[in-house]
Amino acid sequence: MAIVGLKTGGRILSIQSHVAYGYVGGKAAVFPLQCLGYDVDVVNTVNFSNHSGYGRFGGSRASAEELSNIFNIMLQNELLVPDRLLTGYVPGAEATAAVTDLAKRLRERKPDLIYLLDPVLGDSGRLYVSPDVIPIYQSALPLATIITPNWFEVEVLTGITITDTQSLHKAIRMLHETYHVPHVVVSSIPLKPWLKDLLPSHLRPPSDSSDSSYLACITSSRDGNLVHAQCFPCLPGYFSGVGDLFSALVIGHFPGSNSQAKETATGGETPLSRAVSHALSKTHAMLVLTHEAALALPEEERLVTDEELDAREPMRKIRRMRGRELRLIQGQDIIRGTQPVEYRELQPWTDFWSA
Amino acid sequence: MAIVGLKTGGRILSIQSHVAYGYVGGKAAVFPLQCLGYDVDVVNTVNFSNHSGYGRFGGSRASAEELSNIFNIMLQNELLVPDRLLTGYVPGAEATAAVTDLAKRLRERKPDLIYLLDPVLGDSGRLYVSPDVIPIYQSALPLATIITPNWFEVEVLTGITITDTQSLHKAIRMLHETYHVPHVVVSSIPLKPWLKDLLPSHLRPPSDSSDSSYLACITSSRDGNLVHAQCFPCLPGYFSGVGDLFSALVIGHFPGSNSQAKETATGGETPLSRAVSHALSKTHAMLVLTHEAALALPEEERLVTDEELDAREPMRKIRRMRGRELRLIQGQDIIRGTQPVEYRELQPWTDFWSA
Repeated sequence: MAIVGLKTGGRILSIQSHVAYGYVGGKAAVFPLQCLGYDVDVVNTVNFSNHSGYGRFGGSRASAEELSNIFNIMLQNELLVPDRLLTGYVPGAEATAAVTDLAKRLRERKPDLIYLLDPVLGDSGRLYVSPDVIPIYQSALPLATIITPNWFEVEVLTGITITDTQSLHKAIRMLHETYHVPHVVVSSIPLKPWLKDLLPSHLRPPSDSSDSSYLACITSSRDGNLVHAQCFPCLPGYFSGVGDLFSALVIGHFPGSNSQAKETATGGETPLSRAVSHALSKTHAMLVLTHEAALALPEEERLVTDEELDAREPMRKIRRMRGRELRLIQGQDIIRGTQPVEYRELQPWTDFWSA
Repeated sequence: MAIVGLKTGGRILSIQSHVAYGYVGGKAAVFPLQCLGYDVDVVNTVNFSNHSGYGRFGGSRASAEELSNIFNIMLQNELLVPDRLLTGYVPGAEATAAVTDLAKRLRERKPDLIYLLDPVLGDSGRLYVSPDVIPIYQSALPLATIITPNWFEVEVLTGITITDTQSLHKAIRMLHETYHVPHVVVSSIPLKPWLKDLLPSHLRPPSDSSDSSYLACITSSRDGNLVHAQCFPCLPGYFSGVGDLFSALVIGHFPGSNSQAKETATGGETPLSRAVSHALSKTHAMLVLTHEAALALPEEERLVTDEELDAREPMRKIRRMRGRELRLIQGQDIIRGTQPVEYRELQPWTDFWSA
């Protein structure tokens, strides 16, 4: 009996953190990409017990030498043959430079490489990384096909504080023009009053909702000045690995350089907006699943954040973190598309640049 | 809209090697277990570019201290809560001792832990590991629920050369009685004439086949002296990661301690024989898929083994290895059971012990 395999989506090299327990970094990205049919080459930038949000974690970071050694052997062995590259958290400036150097070599060898660079720098006004990493990310931006910063990472990369229409325009334009990024996906930006007012009415969240409970996702493609957006409800509390899952789904759904879908834009969708719509829809469904599962846990597993109590009793925070790990395994049919979820389609924002 | 997740199979801690490219160790085990619905905690014992069979590889080995540190932090953080434990290749005696120490602690905390120990020691008469690892594996055997040695690993662990019925009996009895292993799965043993003669006629391969093209898989459960077996065709050439995939599928299909299936044995099947039948069927189908894909490659990717030519031209071997990586992604529906494959059911070997 001949056995017929799934058609493969191609080969992705994923370079990010690894944790033994839970779903952040590679643990949040690799399984979804495999479910979508990609062979994933996995280089671990750290090997930790769990993510740092638990407060207590152990393990080791890969040095720049270790990473370069792995890349060089793969190169010598003709095993560095990805169609796509996905990079996330890398510990420190030297290791980030080693990853950027690899991206440069891959881009030279394969001009149509699809490189999604997720500049994991921080969130909500707080930098996760040492400031000397920032210029290295800036030097890497021209190598990327797509970047997926949150609003804070846009601010850090561009040096522009986003407070109004002008600053938002300026920041996105700088990413396209100064840093030559073809596709910018601002994964989440709080829906402050100025942004809500800026949004065309068909993109605004339902008027009975409080603004602070919604986030916006905005995509911008350099060619054709195409901007799309969608708002989505923000679930209470903090979930880890969400950005890593989202970025994996964006690159996983982005059409390949040989794909027919590449040039097709139907009903206002572009290849980028369609990929991001799928990524947003699936990520949001996974969050709802995770949130609902967390609500069903015993009370001591879901105590709300209280920095004073958390500091006095570390297990309080640890149990909360554990209860909020992504339900990636339980939601795998969402990733695969065999369990349908609400399609949160990004809509064209035609007058964005003239606003 | 409420989103309903898959019922989870539980939580498995997998401790084995990691390679960036290809499918051996954790890369061959974790994705299949995730597809079967398990949350998998993944501790990497090495971080290599590719498996050692390529001849050239780079990366780092985790030290015993690094492994113990990760285990200890997970323990402190109440993240060491697996229902099942799967251990494979561990580099060196000290790291193996650290893993064995962890298995002991997990067994003490959870007497019904299902522990599948794959004693990765060697194959076809050649030891992969340093001999000082052997006594540590022997000391770990009483902690295991199931072990999955190949015939050579049975010889190494028991010190008994398997050449006839008596020596086979003696080796399996020693694993059950001296080392207290409840379930022994001899994953593959060449069908030499003495073994073919020993097999009941209904278990023998088709008579028109050459014996050397078949391997036998034999399972033995201590309680009830139940032995099962099945022969399966041996595909030409060497494939890596097959034992890692097989062991993952055995533990993935073995019923949990609360499962009804645990005590049910229908039509001559036992919970062990059924799990191994599924593992054998799916592993074999994956090999056929891989073999067929390799045959379709350009000639320079599938040159046969020739030690002299391989030594002169390392890329010759590397390209062959690359062409023979498991097609795990393309065959994921086989793992998941949504693509049906021939069920290679292990059959009771009722007169095994009286032969």
